[in-house]
Amino acid sequence: MNNIFGKNISISIFGESHGKSIGVVIGGLPSGIKLDFEQIQQEMSRRAPGQNKLSTQRKESDMPIIQSGIFEDYTTGAPLCAIIKNNDAHSKDYSILKTHMRPGHADYTGNIRYNGFNDYRGGGHFSGRITAPLVFAGAVAKQIIKTKGITVGAHISQIFNIQDKKFDKQNLDKQIFHNILEKDIPVIDDTKIEPMCAKIFEAKSKSDSVGGKIECAIIGVPAGIGNPFFDSVESVISHLAFSVPAVKGIAFGIGEEFANLYGSEANDEFCIKDNEITTKTNNNGGILGGITNGAPIIFEVTIKPTPSISKEQNTVNIETKKEVKLEIQGRHDPCIVQRAVVVIEAIAAIAMLEML
Amino acid sequence: MNNIFGKNISISIFGESHGKSIGVVIGGLPSGIKLDFEQIQQEMSRRAPGQNKLSTQRKESDMPIIQSGIFEDYTTGAPLCAIIKNNDAHSKDYSILKTHMRPGHADYTGNIRYNGFNDYRGGGHFSGRITAPLVFAGAVAKQIIKTKGITVGAHISQIFNIQDKKFDKQNLDKQIFHNILEKDIPVIDDTKIEPMCAKIFEAKSKSDSVGGKIECAIIGVPAGIGNPFFDSVESVISHLAFSVPAVKGIAFGIGEEFANLYGSEANDEFCIKDNEITTKTNNNGGILGGITNGAPIIFEVTIKPTPSISKEQNTVNIETKKEVKLEIQGRHDPCIVQRAVVVIEAIAAIAMLEML
Amino acid sequence: MNNIFGKNISISIFGESHGKSIGVVIGGLPSGIKLDFEQIQQEMSRRAPGQNKLSTQRKESDMPIIQSGIFEDYTTGAPLCAIIKNNDAHSKDYSILKTHMRPGHADYTGNIRYNGFNDYRGGGHFSGRITAPLVFAGAVAKQIIKTKGITVGAHISQIFNIQDKKFDKQNLDKQIFHNILEKDIPVIDDTKIEPMCAKIFEAKSKSDSVGGKIECAIIGVPAGIGNPFFDSVESVISHLAFSVPAVKGIAFGIGEEFANLYGSEANDEFCIKDNEITTKTNNNGGILGGITNGAPIIFEVTIKPTPSISKEQNTVNIETKKEVKLEIQGRHDPCIVQRAVVVIEAIAAIAMLEML
Amino acid sequence: MNNIFGKNISISIFGESHGKSIGVVIGGLPSGIKLDFEQIQQEMSRRAPGQNKLSTQRKESDMPIIQSGIFEDYTTGAPLCAIIKNNDAHSKDYSILKTHMRPGHADYTGNIRYNGFNDYRGGGHFSGRITAPLVFAGAVAKQIIKTKGITVGAHISQIFNIQDKKFDKQNLDKQIFHNILEKDIPVIDDTKIEPMCAKIFEAKSKSDSVGGKIECAIIGVPAGIGNPFFDSVESVISHLAFSVPAVKGIAFGIGEEFANLYGSEANDEFCIKDNEITTKTNNNGGILGGITNGAPIIFEVTIKPTPSISKEQNTVNIETKKEVKLEIQGRHDPCIVQRAVVVIEAIAAIAMLEML
Repeated sequence: MNNIFGKNISISIFGESHGKSIGVVIGGLPSGIKLDFEQIQQEMSRRAPGQNKLSTQRKESDMPIIQSGIFEDYTTGAPLCAIIKNNDAHSKDYSILKTHMRPGHADYTGNIRYNGFNDYRGGGHFSGRITAPLVFAGAVAKQIIKTKGITVGAHISQIFNIQDKKFDKQNLDKQIFHNILEKDIPVIDDTKIEPMCAKIFEAKSKSDSVGGKIECAIIGVPAGIGNPFFDSVESVISHLAFSVPAVKGIAFGIGEEFANLYGSEANDEFCIKDNEITTKTNNNGGILGGITNGAPIIFEVTIKPTPSISKEQNTVNIETKKEVKLEIQGRHDPCIVQRAVVVIEAIAAIAMLEML
Repeated sequence: MNNIFGKNISISIFGESHGKSIGVVIGGLPSGIKLDFEQIQQEMSRRAPGQNKLSTQRKESDMPIIQSGIFEDYTTGAPLCAIIKNNDAHSKDYSILKTHMRPGHADYTGNIRYNGFNDYRGGGHFSGRITAPLVFAGAVAKQIIKTKGITVGAHISQIFNIQDKKFDKQNLDKQIFHNILEKDIPVIDDTKIEPMCAKIFEAKSKSDSVGGKIECAIIGVPAGIGNPFFDSVESVISHLAFSVPAVKGIAFGIGEEFANLYGSEANDEFCIKDNEITTKTNNNGGILGGITNGAPIIFEVTIKPTPSISKEQNTVNIETKKEVKLEIQGRHDPCIVQRAVVVIEAIAAIAMLEML
Repeated sequence: MNNIFGKNISISIFGESHGKSIGVVIGGLPSGIKLDFEQIQQEMSRRAPGQNKLSTQRKESDMPIIQSGIFEDYTTGAPLCAIIKNNDAHSKDYSILKTHMRPGHADYTGNIRYNGFNDYRGGGHFSGRITAPLVFAGAVAKQIIKTKGITVGAHISQIFNIQDKKFDKQNLDKQIFHNILEKDIPVIDDTKIEPMCAKIFEAKSKSDSVGGKIECAIIGVPAGIGNPFFDSVESVISHLAFSVPAVKGIAFGIGEEFANLYGSEANDEFCIKDNEITTKTNNNGGILGGITNGAPIIFEVTIKPTPSISKEQNTVNIETKKEVKLEIQGRHDPCIVQRAVVVIEAIAAIAMLEML
Repeated sequence: MNNIFGKNISISIFGESHGKSIGVVIGGLPSGIKLDFEQIQQEMSRRAPGQNKLSTQRKESDMPIIQSGIFEDYTTGAPLCAIIKNNDAHSKDYSILKTHMRPGHADYTGNIRYNGFNDYRGGGHFSGRITAPLVFAGAVAKQIIKTKGITVGAHISQIFNIQDKKFDKQNLDKQIFHNILEKDIPVIDDTKIEPMCAKIFEAKSKSDSVGGKIECAIIGVPAGIGNPFFDSVESVISHLAFSVPAVKGIAFGIGEEFANLYGSEANDEFCIKDNEITTKTNNNGGILGGITNGAPIIFEVTIKPTPSISKEQNTVNIETKKEVKLEIQGRHDPCIVQRAVVVIEAIAAIAMLEML
């Protein structure tokens, strides 16, 4: 296995949480795309820590520094490399992690996978921080697919047991993405902001954490994208989605509801609207037989609660093979769902770039 | 995009529902594996139509004919090609499908994707029939991973609103797979067989269909398999799962339940058992940070109701661009979940073979 | 490693010399290409054995039987599988090859590579016969690239010490390909036919064999095809060329002559002709920096003498690890260069299809 | 096409001659390899400019700065990124190259390929400088394959019409690589150093350049590496070799001589030596049927003369589409063959790493 995503484009992510830098090389980009770096920085900020009281206080400017592939603000078509320096890492906070495996984390599996040579500090290459280069790549991808009329947006659809409204799958206007973006907690239904915040603070006060769901939509995708075996649109999106730490489930369209419906209820009947073939409903989330049908692509991912909690947990010392207690020190998010929204958008945009 | 799955192995599926044959080429197999062809044929039968009253009466012997890659019953290490002839196809039943797009099917997206040159008969390359070569590849994969102590099994976890028990994620013995296999409807809890059958017949009597869920487990996988970016175990399994027609969702471990839990509840605490590091629970379905932790891999997929129903539906004629009514003729399954069980096992086995 | 060529298209070759069939699956083809099957069969015949006195008397009709991917004579866009049955194999002729390793052949390396499980009959998957599916894929590729104005042709440029004229690299008309095709020995200079034939018969009379060179040209390729790292046009063509058994060298443009020239002699100066930018010479064989410049692509491959000779040779018995004498029985070509011409054209066409 | 080499490992090269930095990401490395950074720096120096009077005076320290993938001097198994800063670039020297296409260079093809958005300064992504990250990757690969007993070495086998001795293909000891390394001009036969130097200086005095050949050997490769279709050892090595700017030909073993021999002369007869199966000769350069046979892998590449010469040349202005004269300014090598030796070794080592 070789750490690359993509057949048409290539995304190669590198870096560890406490190494010199993290970054990404993107190959196969079209030349001549003018990139808006301010917009890229805005996207980076949506994921960056320390943005508000809901997230970890580790402050990273997370400014991507372009190494190659851009000349006079335009993509050259040669591989684009951007690095993000690791500035604010307190490596000493993490020294216990060499031996004490954090439950729910990749400490143990990473140790086994790499025979103990993995950089354990802050999760190393498994750190959520490694999604920053993914957000960069997504920000670039967004600007490229925008030239073809494609827009990506997402919102928190659930925090613990508090559910936001869902996207209107059939009549989705990209204006809604702008509205969502302006909120501290990116939801459709404003009345859910306060209870979601309260839940996150409650978890924090208990030294615990909560998870949730993110619903993502891609608007403007033409019909006919994707391949039945083995690169269905669902395959490509889910492949990327499950590269994002903490994602444990994905469903397209109405998702698990499909199990409870009759075929006659689930099928999206075709009709003619404005002389174009379209569907009356969009239960299938814009994808039939693995190929887009022109309706918005809709999917929802489940994000597990941040495994890093300061509450005492039972675990093992991998060197002594003894059971031990662990209270994880350092700065941790009681909830990462709000920071993951832009990451999910990023992988959606990258998937589109790959498939177009 | 190039129709291949795998970096270490390669799976290349070909064929259309009403073409000369369907088949698969599997590259990258180890040499010297003795294949049990009787067992392969049994696996094929689990998916084949016409096996009992629950499925379509189209009878296909579905016997794979080996073209290459096997010499004196052992794999040679060269690409293994098997073809399955298309015998019992009634092409005339499908002629209306050239123009009348079946709701919920790939007729429309396939037409757009291939500029109208797709073989529309019986869904062509999008037909559920194309999962037969996948089952063959899975049957081969199962025998190879068995030599490393890995076993795959699945059951119907839901038909419409009737739910089976779930696998005991922590203490899963492969004996349960044998028990499940012997039942007409592969479930854990026998009391669910009758209501599930009744539901399927009810759908059939209404000229309608139902969907459901399949839970799959992989036992015996060593810790340390998978790659964080971009080939997490979840990425590889989901990539394949969404190549199976009708799969619309996948979740690992406790899946969507993760959204409703605190971190302290969701985390699988490590402990020592028989001098080995293990976890007390298996909420994560055997995967942490995209890498196996030695616990059983558990995932569940959502299968939408068979889109082919004989009930009248609204749709369009793609040539005239007029709205039309459609009653799909031919033989169709009121439920394909029971036939899909072995397909899901197949993709699980193929994913393991790729990652080992 | 997984037995697949291509990122945009995929070519998956399968089969052994004495198995049930050999064949190929081609993925990623455009839909809607009408294939001329008579022309494909003609291409197959150029490689097939038993065509004239110069080649082995093993008669294979070598008729490809389409399994999938073609509907009403047009490509569907789904994977195209064709198989070629193995009819005329005399397996018993080859039984000694299980233990007696033929010098210059893959018997020994195949045995080691596949732990003794390789099908040794007639070279198995290493047989020159496996180039037949490659010729099929090339014939399909030729018809597709022809729709973009690209033509491929080749000739024998050397048999033993007898050299043909080279292509006029700068002013190459595709008419010359037709002229070459009509000859028993495909050369530019007719006066070389008789001495080449004589040399081949001389080798045959000595129970020996001869090799040679093939020069290939691709006309009509637009400028701007290829990628510097790592998919230069030379990289892609050479990757395929060295998949053809017996090819041991490749050079582009004036090839090894480059070593003997000054930069001022080697450089192709640019000029304007008919208002278009072109080069005065074509020493670089149409490729600069790994990318096409619009001039004909020219390359030459070196083919080693057929290793199968009936002359007595020293070798070893792999089971007893003793030195033994071997006189290879069966029907063998004293020269395969003339049959390899169409194979080299095929890989050139496939490479173009991949890169376009 | 996506700018990545490798299926098992992945090499992703980025950078332009006058951008911020150039570098490489290497994925799929084994964990736990201790890297000797002094040795890596030595390898970098062998390629670096300004090392002696034979090469350009552009001075680049060419020190790779590790960004990731190394922890406490050992590979972690996560992607290894190294960047090399561009310090000594005089961008103004190159401004004429925006319009005046250098003959023999990629200026024109790069312009067409990337629609005029390529970074033309110093050749941009096509610059020979981009081989520095390749040398870094090769230096890492060398250290890894050394742990398996594999050593790579190369020498200049020809400069213009002056030929060095060839490697003794059958009895090659790695000591010879050390001897070659200590010379200013890496040749086997010391008497060729002076005439080669003289030839290079002569070319320089004429504002011209010369090319040559490099012969490379890989010792210690076990038998059984490689795959017949489509990843023969020759395919993988040649794919990489033709990514190196200025390489125009490659041949394995005795190469083009194969065309002039009888099969009985060309075949490497097998024999028993020290109870092991080996061959009496090594005409095939250690590869049969695309798979290693345990003998040294031997190949030779042809390097064209440096296209950058200060002698006046005819060319075109791509903007005005007029014919113009060009005298290339700046510092250029009259011969790059001596600097390319380590690059060829690098690609050989990378190819081995990929295939093992």
